[in-house]
Amino acid sequence: MSGIDPALVAEYGVEERWSLALTRRAEWRDTDGFGHVNHLTYLEWCEDIRNRYMEVVGLPRLSAETPGPVLKSVSFDYARALGFGDEVLVTARVAAMRRTSFTMDYAVWQAGLVGRGSALCVLMINRTGERVPIPEAMRAAIAARDGIAPMEPGG
Amino acid sequence: MSGIDPALVAEYGVEERWSLALTRRAEWRDTDGFGHVNHLTYLEWCEDIRNRYMEVVGLPRLSAETPGPVLKSVSFDYARALGFGDEVLVTARVAAMRRTSFTMDYAVWQAGLVGRGSALCVLMINRTGERVPIPEAMRAAIAARDGIAPMEPGG
Amino acid sequence: MSGIDPALVAEYGVEERWSLALTRRAEWRDTDGFGHVNHLTYLEWCEDIRNRYMEVVGLPRLSAETPGPVLKSVSFDYARALGFGDEVLVTARVAAMRRTSFTMDYAVWQAGLVGRGSALCVLMINRTGERVPIPEAMRAAIAARDGIAPMEPGG
Amino acid sequence: MSGIDPALVAEYGVEERWSLALTRRAEWRDTDGFGHVNHLTYLEWCEDIRNRYMEVVGLPRLSAETPGPVLKSVSFDYARALGFGDEVLVTARVAAMRRTSFTMDYAVWQAGLVGRGSALCVLMINRTGERVPIPEAMRAAIAARDGIAPMEPGG
Repeated sequence: MSGIDPALVAEYGVEERWSLALTRRAEWRDTDGFGHVNHLTYLEWCEDIRNRYMEVVGLPRLSAETPGPVLKSVSFDYARALGFGDEVLVTARVAAMRRTSFTMDYAVWQAGLVGRGSALCVLMINRTGERVPIPEAMRAAIAARDGIAPMEPGG
Repeated sequence: MSGIDPALVAEYGVEERWSLALTRRAEWRDTDGFGHVNHLTYLEWCEDIRNRYMEVVGLPRLSAETPGPVLKSVSFDYARALGFGDEVLVTARVAAMRRTSFTMDYAVWQAGLVGRGSALCVLMINRTGERVPIPEAMRAAIAARDGIAPMEPGG
Repeated sequence: MSGIDPALVAEYGVEERWSLALTRRAEWRDTDGFGHVNHLTYLEWCEDIRNRYMEVVGLPRLSAETPGPVLKSVSFDYARALGFGDEVLVTARVAAMRRTSFTMDYAVWQAGLVGRGSALCVLMINRTGERVPIPEAMRAAIAARDGIAPMEPGG
Repeated sequence: MSGIDPALVAEYGVEERWSLALTRRAEWRDTDGFGHVNHLTYLEWCEDIRNRYMEVVGLPRLSAETPGPVLKSVSFDYARALGFGDEVLVTARVAAMRRTSFTMDYAVWQAGLVGRGSALCVLMINRTGERVPIPEAMRAAIAARDGIAPMEPGG
């Protein structure tokens, strides 16, 4: 099991173990008329780290012809508001895998927890709509980095 | 209890009772490299109808100085992919109210269900961060249009 | 030469002749921390009406395999700021055509001019990157609706 | 006159002199159904570097009560298409200053030029709509870093 850089853990007040991290800055267009970062921006950050995670575990760069993660559901809990220019750490880990799908958890940190979310993703060839099994090498890489079973019982 | 236009119900294959509806069209920038509408677009549509719902039940136009809904959590389940130019109906209703918060449910329709979501919102004066009770007139309007109790037991 | 609905012309204070119009409302996520509609939103509206214009003159729905407009340049002049909930009319017309490209002008109206822009577009099969001539029927439809020459001299 | 890191100049094939640079990666939501990065994304990158430039020359963090740049016009020329995951360098410099406004030029690089743009910005207190002169210290910082006159003749 690998983990993220301890310096980042300390700087952003990260709790729990996460295997991937990405820094982000709230841009001007991300703010709304309340001066808050819009709720959608957090989900954009989750999408960004999800795609980097896919690359880290060996999925070819996303295209319509190669397996790509398609969202079946998404959720996010907002703990604190952010404003323009705030710098955050976005963290991700896979929580569970089935044959063609996986659940990924996310969190956003800045002096402690800002929010956390989750997404259920299915691996598909999007040109055809065909669901594809998580490749063995990718499955092993995920299991190793996030310390989870390569397959859920009955998955 | 009011409801949405029966012609829309028929045209988009809407199930269940909803009190507000909004048409939307998937724009080009909403599509991604799979040719799908990005998962965030559905949540944009939920935000659009949430703000129209607020106006319909009498909340003053959003500003930092007046009570506005702040998201505490959001979720969405994707039933089917959409593509460029697809026209959908977005529907909303309040499912429950507490003193300063409410839960709003959403669905997206096109020849039946495309997806459904939910959001927990707190009413706040965003300049000060102060939580404010849902105004009585707004509470009554929501209760009437969505056929729910004006206050959850213990809410 | 056709034109837009005179009722819209009067309601939004439209000047000059335009052949296509689209209503838009500034949504919450379009606002920034100044309470203004972000400058990018105006260009989103131009993109929306550009794609509708393409349909009106007979271009098949955008896909990677069929001819689609690719932007070579874009510009916009902002005359006035907009805020949340503002309703505007977006107008478009083609100003000039060459063999594989055209210039489209845009304006945004609300009690007069809010801003105006322009884009130079090339028609391409995006799967292959091949430039394609504007189809004859589309060229004729554009010339007729916007009162311009079917081809620029030397175009 | 300062300039950007020569290693970045070499890596991204930057031409001309620029005083600020920012790396960006094309994210999944930035792609459209052609598999291209949407034309708006380039302008988002310009906005990001514009705001960083403002900080570098001493403007307080953007807020409705403090002077902030408001766009009067924007333009962009697209030289080449980008796809998902492409990493680019965004560069900026001020080309001219007047009493309350300035023109900023931008370019995007990846193995040479990807596109270039420009924006005319006015400094305003957005709560009141009042135009404010560029502060002296900011004016001097801009003149020094970009090798331009502190004020255009007659500006």
